[in-house]
Amino acid sequence: MKTDYEYMQLALDLAASAKGNTNPNPVVGAVLVKDGVIVGTGLHRKAGEPHAEVHAFRMAGEHAKDATLYVTLEPCSHYGKTPPCAKLVKESEVSRVVVATTDPNPNVAGRGINMLREAGIEVEVGLLEKEARKLNERFIHNMLTSKPFVISKFAMTLDGKIATRNGQSKWITSEEARLQVHELRHEVDAILVGIGTVLADNPSLTTRLPHRNGKNPIRIILDSELKTPLNANVTDTSEAPTIIVCSTNVDEAKKSQFLEKGVKILSIEKNTDGLKLDDMLDELYKLGITDVLVEGGAEVNASFLRAGFINKFLVYIAPKILGGRNSKTPFTGLDVDTMDAALQLEFDSFEMVGPDICITAYPKLGETK
Amino acid sequence: MKTDYEYMQLALDLAASAKGNTNPNPVVGAVLVKDGVIVGTGLHRKAGEPHAEVHAFRMAGEHAKDATLYVTLEPCSHYGKTPPCAKLVKESEVSRVVVATTDPNPNVAGRGINMLREAGIEVEVGLLEKEARKLNERFIHNMLTSKPFVISKFAMTLDGKIATRNGQSKWITSEEARLQVHELRHEVDAILVGIGTVLADNPSLTTRLPHRNGKNPIRIILDSELKTPLNANVTDTSEAPTIIVCSTNVDEAKKSQFLEKGVKILSIEKNTDGLKLDDMLDELYKLGITDVLVEGGAEVNASFLRAGFINKFLVYIAPKILGGRNSKTPFTGLDVDTMDAALQLEFDSFEMVGPDICITAYPKLGETK
Repeated sequence: MKTDYEYMQLALDLAASAKGNTNPNPVVGAVLVKDGVIVGTGLHRKAGEPHAEVHAFRMAGEHAKDATLYVTLEPCSHYGKTPPCAKLVKESEVSRVVVATTDPNPNVAGRGINMLREAGIEVEVGLLEKEARKLNERFIHNMLTSKPFVISKFAMTLDGKIATRNGQSKWITSEEARLQVHELRHEVDAILVGIGTVLADNPSLTTRLPHRNGKNPIRIILDSELKTPLNANVTDTSEAPTIIVCSTNVDEAKKSQFLEKGVKILSIEKNTDGLKLDDMLDELYKLGITDVLVEGGAEVNASFLRAGFINKFLVYIAPKILGGRNSKTPFTGLDVDTMDAALQLEFDSFEMVGPDICITAYPKLGETK
Repeated sequence: MKTDYEYMQLALDLAASAKGNTNPNPVVGAVLVKDGVIVGTGLHRKAGEPHAEVHAFRMAGEHAKDATLYVTLEPCSHYGKTPPCAKLVKESEVSRVVVATTDPNPNVAGRGINMLREAGIEVEVGLLEKEARKLNERFIHNMLTSKPFVISKFAMTLDGKIATRNGQSKWITSEEARLQVHELRHEVDAILVGIGTVLADNPSLTTRLPHRNGKNPIRIILDSELKTPLNANVTDTSEAPTIIVCSTNVDEAKKSQFLEKGVKILSIEKNTDGLKLDDMLDELYKLGITDVLVEGGAEVNASFLRAGFINKFLVYIAPKILGGRNSKTPFTGLDVDTMDAALQLEFDSFEMVGPDICITAYPKLGETK
């Protein structure tokens, strides 16, 4: 006989196994238990496919009656691509439902739980809530802001340098760390760099994984004056789609050359700090992009930071010291005068990746939008 | 019945408990075991006091006969302040000796082990050797180089900044991290900063611990032109000794003002890169200083780095982003052109200290002197 905690942990593990495959939907796992025996398990595999609960109930069949349902996210209460799960749960005659966290989707937001309670089912909410919310941090952010979840990733030496004074950055980190970044590219909808990175490195920004085909993210180039060379690797859209974000001032003839190559152009107004990232993120979300991996350089990193749009930091630190006044720094342009004015974060976790260390951090509450 | 491994681990724990108290001697622990029972334990508490083995044999008395001795460092073979331990071990009629690591002291260096083997005692060397060598990294370095062991400690934000553009650095890290640094000051013989730090912050560089009296390290100021103000906190030698290291060009009248205050002046020749750190470290070791904590600033850090004299790095990273082109960097002046030219380190360990992360790293073999 396992505990509620252990069953919910299993449901979370099921949910986590689909990470990166369910966009724009959340990941969800469900476990049905009757008399100490797991009678049903399920997870949401992909948008458009059945929800986690549906798989679990199908597996359980008649054993679902009087069972306990453990589910990582509140059962939905609305008709989307599939009928509401709360209805299914009600009809299955389970006696108890344990929910890790409520659904932030404004179409649900507690209605699923209410529907069950009104049907006389015992519902408990909040078991492993923090873990469940972290697992769906991207989805929760999408629901609350209608913007993509922005991850800032950079690699630096132990003394905080992302490149030598003449811009060389190949390679700061190990093969293991770079592989992990490609795994991440496979998971996100889009990857974003500035025109400076395109001009300096001419990157492909595709996903390269050794033993399987990686999914390529949409490539987004911040390029207010449309300086991307027509023969840059990112303009080859045969491998992955590309969106160049430029200012509304760029003339149409210039744009059309890119449009002919299949590159999408997103025209955004400027403010004193460059392209309005606020507007850009709204537009990207409307295009179905739920998360963006910002891979630099320092100017782009700083503009996201100043605008308060970084939701998560992934920092790879290599066991090297580069030194120097002129080596490149992860974020230019902020230059605050006092320590109090620094952006306050919280470290979430840290791990060795090959010889490097990877630190995950989040902005403290109220520090970003 | 425990294993060899467990007994040696206990001996290492005993040794570690004296860390910081035994300079210039190593820390050593010893455990005597007979028929699966621990009959003796000991550790070296302080230079001039008995060695670890002596305590263990005193405790064991007649039980030492046919016992196994676990000792973290090769028993000494020479007459120092105490008679050779190898002689004592031989006379005690133990049947087996397990040694973690040999003694790098040129007066011992295998002679202790040979002495025991010649007496027919079974000797095994190398159990938990890596751990034992790390525990005595300071002592081993002293023995091999006749120089102090140099630890570079700095605190930075997650984007690699040690101060704002106008030099403000109070406080980057948390109270917990700063307390840990004061624990470290208590353990080392000396702390070193540059004249820039003295002029900017007028620090006392003493050990401040909340619930006990910390031992103050000797304060060393790198100040080639003797610009330290006569009323600087470090010139008050009532709390701790101070050594100012200046160039041989400084005139005697200027020096005598400091000598009157009880400050020691060390005159060192200069090369193109400033004071000859090589000579300085030789002199400091002659003065009995076995380890030096270098606490910056960036210029001093860089000059130690360039000269190849940093043996260990302790880096505190705060969950903050300062940003900026002009915020201060941990090491100025290196400015290498290629990533390959970076100083190569190895991360040893990392831990949370309050909200901060502390990373310990060592230069890769061959990277420093």
